[in-house]
Amino acid sequence: MNKYRQLYQQHKNDLFQKFLTLLKFPSVSADPAYYGQLNACADWLCNYMKDLGATVEQIKNYGLPVVLANFSVDPKLPTVLIYGHYDVQPANDRDLWFQDPFEPLIRDGKIYGRGVADDKGPIMMGLFAISILKNLGQLPLNIKIILEGEEESSGEAIFKLVEREPEKLKCDLVLCTDTGGLRSGRATIVYSTRGLVYKQIDLIGPSHDLHSGTYGGPVQPPTNALALILAGLFDAEGRINIPGVYDKVRAIDPDERKAFADLNFDYERYKNHIGTDTLITEPGLTPLEQNWCRPNLCVNGIIGGYTGQGPKTVLPSTASAKISMRLVPDQDPQEISGLIDQRIRQLCPPGIRLEIKDFGQAEPFLGLRSGPAVEAATEAITCVYECGPDLIREGGTIPILSHFARYTHPNVLCLGFTGAECNTHGPNENLSLDAFDKGVETMCLFLELLAGRIERS
Amino acid sequence: MNKYRQLYQQHKNDLFQKFLTLLKFPSVSADPAYYGQLNACADWLCNYMKDLGATVEQIKNYGLPVVLANFSVDPKLPTVLIYGHYDVQPANDRDLWFQDPFEPLIRDGKIYGRGVADDKGPIMMGLFAISILKNLGQLPLNIKIILEGEEESSGEAIFKLVEREPEKLKCDLVLCTDTGGLRSGRATIVYSTRGLVYKQIDLIGPSHDLHSGTYGGPVQPPTNALALILAGLFDAEGRINIPGVYDKVRAIDPDERKAFADLNFDYERYKNHIGTDTLITEPGLTPLEQNWCRPNLCVNGIIGGYTGQGPKTVLPSTASAKISMRLVPDQDPQEISGLIDQRIRQLCPPGIRLEIKDFGQAEPFLGLRSGPAVEAATEAITCVYECGPDLIREGGTIPILSHFARYTHPNVLCLGFTGAECNTHGPNENLSLDAFDKGVETMCLFLELLAGRIERS
Repeated sequence: MNKYRQLYQQHKNDLFQKFLTLLKFPSVSADPAYYGQLNACADWLCNYMKDLGATVEQIKNYGLPVVLANFSVDPKLPTVLIYGHYDVQPANDRDLWFQDPFEPLIRDGKIYGRGVADDKGPIMMGLFAISILKNLGQLPLNIKIILEGEEESSGEAIFKLVEREPEKLKCDLVLCTDTGGLRSGRATIVYSTRGLVYKQIDLIGPSHDLHSGTYGGPVQPPTNALALILAGLFDAEGRINIPGVYDKVRAIDPDERKAFADLNFDYERYKNHIGTDTLITEPGLTPLEQNWCRPNLCVNGIIGGYTGQGPKTVLPSTASAKISMRLVPDQDPQEISGLIDQRIRQLCPPGIRLEIKDFGQAEPFLGLRSGPAVEAATEAITCVYECGPDLIREGGTIPILSHFARYTHPNVLCLGFTGAECNTHGPNENLSLDAFDKGVETMCLFLELLAGRIERS
Repeated sequence: MNKYRQLYQQHKNDLFQKFLTLLKFPSVSADPAYYGQLNACADWLCNYMKDLGATVEQIKNYGLPVVLANFSVDPKLPTVLIYGHYDVQPANDRDLWFQDPFEPLIRDGKIYGRGVADDKGPIMMGLFAISILKNLGQLPLNIKIILEGEEESSGEAIFKLVEREPEKLKCDLVLCTDTGGLRSGRATIVYSTRGLVYKQIDLIGPSHDLHSGTYGGPVQPPTNALALILAGLFDAEGRINIPGVYDKVRAIDPDERKAFADLNFDYERYKNHIGTDTLITEPGLTPLEQNWCRPNLCVNGIIGGYTGQGPKTVLPSTASAKISMRLVPDQDPQEISGLIDQRIRQLCPPGIRLEIKDFGQAEPFLGLRSGPAVEAATEAITCVYECGPDLIREGGTIPILSHFARYTHPNVLCLGFTGAECNTHGPNENLSLDAFDKGVETMCLFLELLAGRIERS
């Protein structure tokens, strides 16, 4: 038993009370009704980190408070900036939960509650690690903690802060804790996430709904037009058919392909979880490669005309779709957004007025796959888990990562201690106590190892 | 002033009270809550026709009552069977009406109320004509009246009656009064209507909604698949791309094309009414020809995924569409339905389970464009309106017509006295008093002329 585990076991009950308190804040950023709770949660975090010895501040200029804590040890030592978010997804599906989502419940080795995996658990792993390290003497390096309150509502506050006040966030490595894992019982290093372009397409045909018999033929139904436009975004092989969209997509590195294959990922289990017997890939790609390394276009929503029970012979006046494209390095969201618009306009048939709404963009991220920080993390994980990390990409999007890499420090590392079974964003969000404990220990060990490996810039 | 107009003007006030009474029945067949009112309406019609000298019966074996009245004069004279329906569309949009839709209102030369144009007004034109003709002596031929109560709810009662009890409906001409007109101030003879095949397509992808980032690529979204399938039903020129679908479509008769051109139809007014600046046609066709003489495929409804405000990165589990095809002579609904299913199955991509629901079919109808009955109608209309009828096709569907033509009598004539401005099926349904009066007079004259023109079979 290492020194960290020992000390953690001694103080676990006390520490855990703090975790439960944090989980009880209904810090739902999507709903302004909870803004008071978000502010209270930020205050509580500040006080807790002050108790741990940090100097703290709240930045409220850009939106909901961004909490910034500074555990300064020695200016000669390197500094790590740990990122997390204290806001959570809504939990309006209360009937589907075992308990009140903001009254955490421990059962069968798991802790249930909204935010326990995303991202309050990972935040607490970092703070507990700091507490333990300080208990053992002093921190091995300078630590900054940045916790935002708008991650689940696509807020802009932290983006503005990162751009406009880089000196506050000065560091030698950014560590992101808001990462999931590929499979349970493992820790994960995610070194790439996909970017995002999201749009709504509104089609307007006749000024009012018409009878499909009396008018069908001379009048273009926007529902028909919508199908034509959306289908026109794909070629016969199911690839994206938008000229230029693949131009900057990197070929997959042979080293990476080998590393993915070495994961021995269980596709049968994956298919069972999804509830499908068919996975779609371009020729020569595995499903993980398809998800991680290739852009993807998804029709997220579609609506038009009569959608109730039975038939209604209506030729509708309008139809709409929401579409999003996931981007990979080195696709540029702005450029891709323009290509999509151009293609949609080209596909729009006569008799239809087209409006395109943009829901924002996020850049793809490609971070560290090797180097001192990855080595330190791998060593810490291997020591605690008795097996190495899953070193992976991720199909989803974490918009802040590329922003940190551009404005704060080029070296951004993502450590994940949660897994697919955590029901992140869903009902009965949970985290196994074992995963939490391992996360705390790994963080202790990682910070110690990191201190000896990275350079002060 | 002809003899019919004179007598009608004398008795108009009394007769009109009957019309108002009929309009007050909320005979909404779509809603079982109104079945009592439908029965009461049928009873009232029976009593009224009994008062006019008919023997009447109600056939209730097949659904809501079908009212059958027999005005027998002389077995040696020919018999005309007049068809109409006493049920009406729902009027749940009460806020949009000037008044209670079942409290008829006369204002500015129009009578407002649900069913006034579709089809209680046309029914009353026939019954008033009978009353006037009897007042002047006797009916010039035998008249049967058949009034159903399920036309607005796609009921089957009259179809079964027509198939199973043809002897009750024996006649020498079927006259349908449930026809609209092309433009106001004219009477219309519709000699062809389109048929219909209507289906719902349900696509099932993953067993539950997924995150479009974490799963996008290897998993086929049913929304994407729906667009591919629907778009695959059309070719690059917008024609229907279902092999075999045009095989039996008749070329348009040059005589008909000339007759359509001679209508001098006002397309600018038509486009203004629709609210579009673009009408779609196959090469060489006019918009009316496109609507009347060519099959058409319309996506009547489409739904899948997230359709609320803003973005949501969901890869949905299901997506659905409702599609209908209007058929022209000599397309066979059953055959076309099979071709559509086959094409949809062929277009369905891997990873998607497909279900197709059928909402029934209707045959196209091609009736009389010339001959003694059309001549009699044309002469009567020309006399009353001081211009001839619009002799037209119609893009919509009247399923009972081809059933009458097959089981009752091959000669089916459709006379229309209502127009596009009547707001049929919409709020403030109305009929101009002038159109009503002209309809009554035309019916009197038509029945007189018809008696001398058609043969007893």
